[in-house]
Amino acid sequence: MGEFELLEKIRRRLPRPASRVRVGMGDDAAVTVPGGATATSIDAVVDGVHFRRELWAPEEVGRKALAAALSDLAAMGAAPGEAYLALGVPTGTSEEECLELLDGALDLAAETGTDLVGGDVTRAPALSVTAAVVGHATHAEDLVTRAGARPGELLAVTGRLGGAAAGLLLQQQPELKRAVGAETAGRLRSRQRDPTPRLAAGAALAGAGATAMIDLSDGLGADAGHVATASGVGLRIEAGAVPLAEGVAEVAAAAGLDPLEPAACTGEDYELLATLPEEALEAATAAVEAAGSTLTPIGAASDGEGVEIRLPGGERLTPRGFDQLG
Amino acid sequence: MGEFELLEKIRRRLPRPASRVRVGMGDDAAVTVPGGATATSIDAVVDGVHFRRELWAPEEVGRKALAAALSDLAAMGAAPGEAYLALGVPTGTSEEECLELLDGALDLAAETGTDLVGGDVTRAPALSVTAAVVGHATHAEDLVTRAGARPGELLAVTGRLGGAAAGLLLQQQPELKRAVGAETAGRLRSRQRDPTPRLAAGAALAGAGATAMIDLSDGLGADAGHVATASGVGLRIEAGAVPLAEGVAEVAAAAGLDPLEPAACTGEDYELLATLPEEALEAATAAVEAAGSTLTPIGAASDGEGVEIRLPGGERLTPRGFDQLG
Repeated sequence: MGEFELLEKIRRRLPRPASRVRVGMGDDAAVTVPGGATATSIDAVVDGVHFRRELWAPEEVGRKALAAALSDLAAMGAAPGEAYLALGVPTGTSEEECLELLDGALDLAAETGTDLVGGDVTRAPALSVTAAVVGHATHAEDLVTRAGARPGELLAVTGRLGGAAAGLLLQQQPELKRAVGAETAGRLRSRQRDPTPRLAAGAALAGAGATAMIDLSDGLGADAGHVATASGVGLRIEAGAVPLAEGVAEVAAAAGLDPLEPAACTGEDYELLATLPEEALEAATAAVEAAGSTLTPIGAASDGEGVEIRLPGGERLTPRGFDQLG
Repeated sequence: MGEFELLEKIRRRLPRPASRVRVGMGDDAAVTVPGGATATSIDAVVDGVHFRRELWAPEEVGRKALAAALSDLAAMGAAPGEAYLALGVPTGTSEEECLELLDGALDLAAETGTDLVGGDVTRAPALSVTAAVVGHATHAEDLVTRAGARPGELLAVTGRLGGAAAGLLLQQQPELKRAVGAETAGRLRSRQRDPTPRLAAGAALAGAGATAMIDLSDGLGADAGHVATASGVGLRIEAGAVPLAEGVAEVAAAAGLDPLEPAACTGEDYELLATLPEEALEAATAAVEAAGSTLTPIGAASDGEGVEIRLPGGERLTPRGFDQLG
C-alpha cells in the first residue's frame, strides 16, 4: 500500500467541504478563509495506550480519535470546522483497515459538520491517529478558556459522569458485568469507546455566559484542577450532587471502589465542566437542554486554591488511580 | 514524568506569541484571529522511519519535525504562523530528552517567526513528533497550489538538489565519504538531518507569479508527478539543467548511481519546485535571490501528462528506489 494511493483514495471519499474551505485534501496544505477567530487543538490516540487494536474495530479508532480532538473545541464553545488526520500505520496493515478507520472519523465528521481537509500517512510501530482540529467563532472573546472562573460562581457539569471509567473497568474485569446486566454494561462500554463531543452543549454554555470551561478527559478531579489553577480560584465539588451514569455506582461497588471514584479519578467522559455566575444558571440550563443535554450544579468557586471533593458524610475523597488503558 | 508537568514546563519555555494569538499553549485549544486566509498542514516523523533515535540528538528530531511541516507552508507561499506539536514518547524517556527535542523545534520556530501554541504528549512505543502548522496570507488567491501549471510555462527549482539523498547514502555507506572528503560529507549529512524550510523563497515565488508549487520531500520525479497530475499537464525535466549540491555527483558515482539519481528519485531536499510563465522568470529569479536562494529553470510544462526526465545523451532516466530510512 503506497502513501500516495491511500491519500488519493481517502480524497475521493470526502464530501464537498464548506465554502470556507478553498483548497481541501491533496495539496501541500489546505487553504481556508476563517473570517473570525479560530480555536485549534491537537490530540493523539495510540494502540496500547488509548485503545487496543485487537479489541477495537478500525472505525471505532478513527471515530474516537476525532471525538477526543473535537471535544477540545466543545470546551471552548467553538463551532467545529476542519480536521487534519495523521495516521501512523504498522507494516502489514491493509489498505482496507486504513479506509475503515477513516470511515469512522468521516462518520463523526459528517455528524458534527467537520470537514476533513488534510492528512498524512506514515509507517509507525503501533497504529496511531493524531487529529488536529480547527473550530470557529465570530470573535475571540466568544470562546471560553479555563481561566475565567471567579470566586462565588457556580460549578456545573453536562450529562452524567463515570460511564467511561465504568466501561473500562468492565473491559478489564468482565466479571463485573454481573453487577449491572448486559444491556447497561454495553451502554457503559460504549461511553468509553464512542464518546460524543458535546459541541452543541459547549456552544450553548458559551452563549449563556460560562466563564471557564473544560472537557472531562482526565477525570473530574484532575480537570477541575486545571480550571482552578488557570483561573486562580479554589473549586469545591459536592460529591453527592455529581450526576452518575446508570450502572456506575453498581460497577464501582462490585470493584470495591467508592461510587464516585470512576467519575472523579479518571475516565474519558468528555462531558463539559463549566463555571458561571449563579444568575446565569437558569438560562444556561435551558440552553444546554435545548442542545440535547443536561446541566447540573455540583459545586462552587472560592477564593482558595485547588480542588476539594466533599463526600456526603463530610469527609474528603482521596483519589486512587487505575489503569486507563482502553 | 507526568504529561501535565511536562506541558507546564514546555509552556514556561515559550516566548510571547504574535498578537494574532489570543490564547496560547495550556488551554483546551489555542485561540487565534487569522484575519485573512490560512494554509494548514500536518506532518509526522517517527523513530525508525524518518530518523534513528540512537543516531540523532533530540534537538535534531524536534527541529526536523517542524521543518518538514513548515516546508509545506513554504510550498504554498504562506507566512508561517502557529505550530502544534504532538509528541509520542516511549516509557522511560527522560523529561530532559523531551525538553531538548522541544528546544530544537523552538529554535526553528524562533528563526522562522512561528509560535508554538498547542501540544499533546502521549505514551507511544516509538518516539514520534506530529506537527500541525498554520500559515497566513492576506487572500486565499495569494497562496499557490499544485494545480495551476499551464502548458508552455517554465519549471524551475530553488537551491541545489540531491544533498539530502547523498547525505543519507553517506550514513548508510560510510565508506562513500572517501569520494568527497569529511567537510563536504558533513554538509551533505546536514542537508538530510537539518533541512531548511524555504519560506522566504516560497513567498517570493508566490509574489512573483508562480502558478504551481510543491516542496521536494519525495524526490524531484515524484513531486513533479504530483504537480503534473494536479495541474493536468506534462512536465519535462532536462537532467543536465538540474543544479546538484556540491559532492552529490561524486557520492552517487561512488555508490554506482547516476549523478542525478539522488535528486530525482528520493531525498528530502525541501527545496521548492514551481511553474511560472516565461516572462515572470527574470523577476522571480531576482525575488528568490533577494530571499537568499537561487532559482534555476530545469524544464517546461506541456499538453501531455506525467513527468519525463531527459538525460543529456537523450535517453530517459529510469528511477530506482533506495531506502529512505534516515
